[in-house]
Amino acid sequence: MNRQWLLAARPEGSVKPSDFRWQESSLPELAQGQILVRVIYLSLDPTNRIWMNAADSYLPALPLGEVMRGGAIGEVMQSRNPGFAEGDLVQGLLGWQQYCVSDGKGLGKLPKGLPIPFTAFFGLLGHIGLTAYFGLLDVGKPQPGETLVVSAAAGAVGSLVGQIGKIQGCRVVGIAGSDEKCRWIKDQLGLDAVINYKTEPLPASLQRHCTKGIDIYFDNVGGATLEAVLNLINLRARIVVCGMISQYNAARPAPGPANLANLIKERARMEGFLCTDYSDRAEECFTQLIQWLMAGKIRYRVDVVDGLENAPAALNKLFDGSNAGKLLVKVGPEPGPLRAV
Amino acid sequence: MNRQWLLAARPEGSVKPSDFRWQESSLPELAQGQILVRVIYLSLDPTNRIWMNAADSYLPALPLGEVMRGGAIGEVMQSRNPGFAEGDLVQGLLGWQQYCVSDGKGLGKLPKGLPIPFTAFFGLLGHIGLTAYFGLLDVGKPQPGETLVVSAAAGAVGSLVGQIGKIQGCRVVGIAGSDEKCRWIKDQLGLDAVINYKTEPLPASLQRHCTKGIDIYFDNVGGATLEAVLNLINLRARIVVCGMISQYNAARPAPGPANLANLIKERARMEGFLCTDYSDRAEECFTQLIQWLMAGKIRYRVDVVDGLENAPAALNKLFDGSNAGKLLVKVGPEPGPLRAV
Repeated sequence: MNRQWLLAARPEGSVKPSDFRWQESSLPELAQGQILVRVIYLSLDPTNRIWMNAADSYLPALPLGEVMRGGAIGEVMQSRNPGFAEGDLVQGLLGWQQYCVSDGKGLGKLPKGLPIPFTAFFGLLGHIGLTAYFGLLDVGKPQPGETLVVSAAAGAVGSLVGQIGKIQGCRVVGIAGSDEKCRWIKDQLGLDAVINYKTEPLPASLQRHCTKGIDIYFDNVGGATLEAVLNLINLRARIVVCGMISQYNAARPAPGPANLANLIKERARMEGFLCTDYSDRAEECFTQLIQWLMAGKIRYRVDVVDGLENAPAALNKLFDGSNAGKLLVKVGPEPGPLRAV
Repeated sequence: MNRQWLLAARPEGSVKPSDFRWQESSLPELAQGQILVRVIYLSLDPTNRIWMNAADSYLPALPLGEVMRGGAIGEVMQSRNPGFAEGDLVQGLLGWQQYCVSDGKGLGKLPKGLPIPFTAFFGLLGHIGLTAYFGLLDVGKPQPGETLVVSAAAGAVGSLVGQIGKIQGCRVVGIAGSDEKCRWIKDQLGLDAVINYKTEPLPASLQRHCTKGIDIYFDNVGGATLEAVLNLINLRARIVVCGMISQYNAARPAPGPANLANLIKERARMEGFLCTDYSDRAEECFTQLIQWLMAGKIRYRVDVVDGLENAPAALNKLFDGSNAGKLLVKVGPEPGPLRAV
């Protein structure tokens, strides 16, 4: 038997339970070339909300009635594909379901025997690591002594960006939405200053903590935060456009910042990117991240919700800010201790 | 006697006559190191409006009561500065006045004997040429076959950008505000398609003329045009942020485009620049522009308003779109035929 969440409706505003439909069905026989994957962890990410819309995004729109799209890690249970063996661990768009039947395209195999917890494949590595690492280093190009501001700074990507910024010698100012999150990124992750945007006036706090202006802004949220940052950018500032979570639930798109002309005044650059652009450099990134992790230079945390049935409700945690760290849904048990290959 | 326009008030919205004050005064004796320059042509540019505001821009705000700031070309009439001789032609921020007393700092000497009309120093070369040439080539990085959209396409900068885009092998779509301007840039300058944004629905017309999407947008206007373009950008599109004339007269800044998240989807870049960043590469630019002019590959036109007294009223022509080509104020007679040095 398979258990699946199908996309039932296009959400208006926040995701509602009725936007999904639960389906139980029997598993089909594998055809030649197919594999059967048991999903272990499902990754919940702000971009999932974009995937529910009727319009194409950087991926084609998901038709109604299909299994909800989602990044996941799983274990190959059966294989009729010479590229995969029973017991292989794979990562890719396995979807919101207990089992995925796949032709293997787009799935990456995970290495075994790494000295990291299993959840690190999502908390530190995978799309989160690629996004933080290349977004900051390749698009943001941080220099020692520069001021880096990161929004959603306690989130999965943001918390890594802040720490990598510190390693690069930047002064890092993090914006987050609770005192607990602010304490974590300041006391545990070592950011230089933090702003709780829900309790502080953002423009004034930014000004207070960025007395030398802002050289790099790693933008996860868009909206009013972007506008406040644009007022403080320095000459040749870089705005790394990673996400605009403040916009994703909007029934109609909110207007953008009124001060884009500051890009001219400061000869600044705003640039969007996707982690998938860097898939072929994943090894370079993951090797470095694991090295930093082992050396105690970076930390991450995961927020694990138990049970596939809870995925729809859990998704909203990303938007109300109630998650603490990388949000995952545990769909099935972790495999036994990972053996080195 | 000198005649000057002083900045009398901070304009609200469009510039009014009362924002300036006319002053006639006698010329001071030159101190050691100073030169006296007779202004010949005063350049009127959209950015002049920004300079009238109380806030600093890329230049410090101009205090009320000072001579209005303006780029100009003039002739040295007297010199107590060893760097300048009587008869030298100079270019720089000489201001809205008949005579400028200067220490020579920031003034560039113009070459003599070039096979071009005197007004070409503003219509083709100078800050206009630098802006169009480096903005498009250095920031926009056009490739043959790409689609380039340029707004204010019949303006001084825009009309050069469109032609340089054609020379680079781009398909060029120009947006302008009158049928006459559209005819000029299509029939005389050779743009591939034109849109009169005052009589056509911009989003639909853009879509019709950019069937392969937009690779480069040279933005002179900001506002709704930028939003319409962002909906059609291609993967790795470049938005060259040169100006945002639609915003300059706004009493309070208008909101920006609601679709900035398209920068992520298309991994696109928005980048501001100023021509002054390229001053040290001026020779490379001017040599090329003159070569293209001689070869009949580019054209320009100037709109000359006679008399310094008409400068304030003329400035608004840039904002109501009634100028045809580079807007200049003729303050004094051109020097005799330029002798080769």
